[in-house]
Amino acid sequence: MSLVDKLKWRYATKKFDSTKKIAADKLQNILDAVQLAPSSLGLQHYRVLVIEDAGVREKLKAVAYGQSQITDASHLIVFAAETNINEEFGKKYIDNVAATRNAPREALAGFEGMVLGAINSRTPEQLLLWAQKQAYIGLGVLIAAASEQEVDNCPMEGFDPAGFDEVLGLKEKGLTATVIVTIGYRAEDDDLSKAAKVRRPADEFFIHI
Amino acid sequence: MSLVDKLKWRYATKKFDSTKKIAADKLQNILDAVQLAPSSLGLQHYRVLVIEDAGVREKLKAVAYGQSQITDASHLIVFAAETNINEEFGKKYIDNVAATRNAPREALAGFEGMVLGAINSRTPEQLLLWAQKQAYIGLGVLIAAASEQEVDNCPMEGFDPAGFDEVLGLKEKGLTATVIVTIGYRAEDDDLSKAAKVRRPADEFFIHI
Repeated sequence: MSLVDKLKWRYATKKFDSTKKIAADKLQNILDAVQLAPSSLGLQHYRVLVIEDAGVREKLKAVAYGQSQITDASHLIVFAAETNINEEFGKKYIDNVAATRNAPREALAGFEGMVLGAINSRTPEQLLLWAQKQAYIGLGVLIAAASEQEVDNCPMEGFDPAGFDEVLGLKEKGLTATVIVTIGYRAEDDDLSKAAKVRRPADEFFIHI
Repeated sequence: MSLVDKLKWRYATKKFDSTKKIAADKLQNILDAVQLAPSSLGLQHYRVLVIEDAGVREKLKAVAYGQSQITDASHLIVFAAETNINEEFGKKYIDNVAATRNAPREALAGFEGMVLGAINSRTPEQLLLWAQKQAYIGLGVLIAAASEQEVDNCPMEGFDPAGFDEVLGLKEKGLTATVIVTIGYRAEDDDLSKAAKVRRPADEFFIHI
């Protein structure tokens, strides 16, 4: 099956088979894809929590309208935006570029100026939105990668970010929960898996110029 | 090559080979994947412009800091968020659900209430941000799908949204340019294609619980 066929196969899984776990190599493959997702200037403005612990997931379910996917899926993934994107964050990134590419720090001065300019020109609110948008790119890549592996996935915005931050201690880590996705395997009796996929007709979605 | 290998192969292409065009079937495949990208409640809060016209792209380059990818890539894709997400938009979506699934409209009353509630509870600014975030999911899926086809891609935030809206007449269409991506084939002499990929180490990106 091509990626398009896999995306046709996928659906927003509401009922997971709680007995089925994602094999370690498949999970690693999905996470590798997310780590490779691009981001504005390459900053990777977010972190990714991979949550398996049953107790923690019970607490998170309570701040996610009791949705069963949170506890029944194989894993819960939380995309958490960085709340401290500042000069230090930018410089640390440039350090990483220099080390990875074995480049002298001075040769990166122009790029560093661009990165720090992009950070310093934004208000704290704009920085957060910027970070959150990048997290959604990661989510899109995760959905594609999981579906490619025939791992079911259900992206979710229906949760209380403050509640997640509290349970996961994200504030102290300079993070805030942005969007979540449960991954695992559909229950055989999830009727939604049989429902026709609803999409806008191509001519109401694409504009060709 | 697996999707992960393809994502390792990809990079933010700064210099495209302007003589190479994406074959029609490959382009369709990429667009099909974007159309299948999930969105909050399934609303597909954005449209996707597929721009090949050279004259239009010249005008857009002028409001995108003169970046050559805009004109040299095979195609320019513009994700444009809907600016009129309102009751009518929500009801039209429910009409589509009913038609696609051959379901009586009344059976969807609960879901319709949820959709309209999600729309009506948001301020216009929140509605726009909501729409824009969904567009970034589409972008993530596009990046995965293009890379899978070995089509180079360069997502870009460095452009003037108001300028794009003006050139493309988006305001009149109830849309606003949100994020763009150029797709095509790397020029042989784009040195960046040889640069090592920079990513945060796994232990500074993932948190396992």
